[in-house]
Amino acid sequence: MQLKPIAHIHSALPAKFGVPRQSGLADSLEARIVFEPAYAVPEALRGLEGFSHIWVIWGFSKVHQKGWSPTVRPPRLGGETRVGVFASRSPYRPNGLGLSSLRLLGIERDKGALCLRVAGADMVDGTPVYDIKPYLRYTDSHPDAVDGYAGRQPFERLSVNFPDHLLALLPAPHREAARELLSLDPRPAYQDDPDRVYGFTLGEQDIRFRIQDGLCQVVAVVPLASHRTDPRCGIMGEGKEAQDGKAEGD
Amino acid sequence: MQLKPIAHIHSALPAKFGVPRQSGLADSLEARIVFEPAYAVPEALRGLEGFSHIWVIWGFSKVHQKGWSPTVRPPRLGGETRVGVFASRSPYRPNGLGLSSLRLLGIERDKGALCLRVAGADMVDGTPVYDIKPYLRYTDSHPDAVDGYAGRQPFERLSVNFPDHLLALLPAPHREAARELLSLDPRPAYQDDPDRVYGFTLGEQDIRFRIQDGLCQVVAVVPLASHRTDPRCGIMGEGKEAQDGKAEGD
Repeated sequence: MQLKPIAHIHSALPAKFGVPRQSGLADSLEARIVFEPAYAVPEALRGLEGFSHIWVIWGFSKVHQKGWSPTVRPPRLGGETRVGVFASRSPYRPNGLGLSSLRLLGIERDKGALCLRVAGADMVDGTPVYDIKPYLRYTDSHPDAVDGYAGRQPFERLSVNFPDHLLALLPAPHREAARELLSLDPRPAYQDDPDRVYGFTLGEQDIRFRIQDGLCQVVAVVPLASHRTDPRCGIMGEGKEAQDGKAEGD
Repeated sequence: MQLKPIAHIHSALPAKFGVPRQSGLADSLEARIVFEPAYAVPEALRGLEGFSHIWVIWGFSKVHQKGWSPTVRPPRLGGETRVGVFASRSPYRPNGLGLSSLRLLGIERDKGALCLRVAGADMVDGTPVYDIKPYLRYTDSHPDAVDGYAGRQPFERLSVNFPDHLLALLPAPHREAARELLSLDPRPAYQDDPDRVYGFTLGEQDIRFRIQDGLCQVVAVVPLASHRTDPRCGIMGEGKEAQDGKAEGD
């Protein structure tokens, strides 16, 4: 079966590093789903404005498909326990499809392009989108579902100390999103060095931070253009870059 | 992007006619997801047994892809109102992907094949499966989601009169499923002739019925082999057959 992208994600996260590990975890992070010209037909969205949530089926475009692995090590289990790839949302699957439920904020025309404004996206900028479906509460919502190993260890949020003079360097729409992304611990999986400065790119800025004893301390906000054009990011200060962060989601 | 089937659905419903319009509506209907030999690796399912529900991404294999339609007419709106294809679960979409949350009953080895036993499937027998993911309650369940036109008109179930001597002609595991499928009104979309006998195939039997004033009256159970080998079904008694029933889901 051959899939054609119907749209692409436009988000402030150009690299996997910093991207939330699942949809909905960073609800203040807005993104846009911009339709390809062939599918930018307003009639195809008629009635969608009545839904609060949508499903997006998308492609793990940044993962090199070196074949699949029967087992993966979810960050939620500390990176030491292996589970089956079909018991995980890992990108390293036979068909590299992602699935996200996003909050629909609005349908817009932007310079002639048709797009959906959404909250809670867990995809990098440029991700191809293959399908959009309405979220149907009566068939999709199972509040009593038992979610195995994922349910046993709820996400713990970090405290975030983002000094005002650094926060002011971000455009207003990114400030709350930056705090939320930092609270999710955007270090590369299995990294835990309290003295090391980590970083990720949000829009036109790199945000640099340390994490010690459950506190995320922002130490710098650096305009992207001032030091390089490659938006990939990772461990700072020793020439290492681009440790892909979203290694093996739940 | 190219997808390879990792598994196929084995179900008692050989044709679209009779298939529930969404997953979970016929919870007593069991099906199996049988992995292709290349993916029949027990390790790939490790940990999945701890989840009550799974996501299945599958292909609308029985829909002739004659191109997509920007708008469709959902049965839920009486077949007269058009909504956008991306505001529906219709199969007539640019990429023919289906999405179903199913209840996981067990993981089994059957004659050397690896399979998942599931409840609530809304796919025909033979449907190709492209991905299986665990259902994560914290990110997938939105019990307060607003579901537009679909939420305004809850499904009304029909009363079913299935005489005991006819019910006894079905194998025991199909009896409750047959009653549940009939309660969902398995007539072809937009058909409403109280005098006409309709039918659908469940396993090795055709079940024939009339619907009058909200009551579904079963009139016959006919072994499939006794009259034909083509399992497709539809309107009975006038040489018409194979009006594909699952026309345009929600």
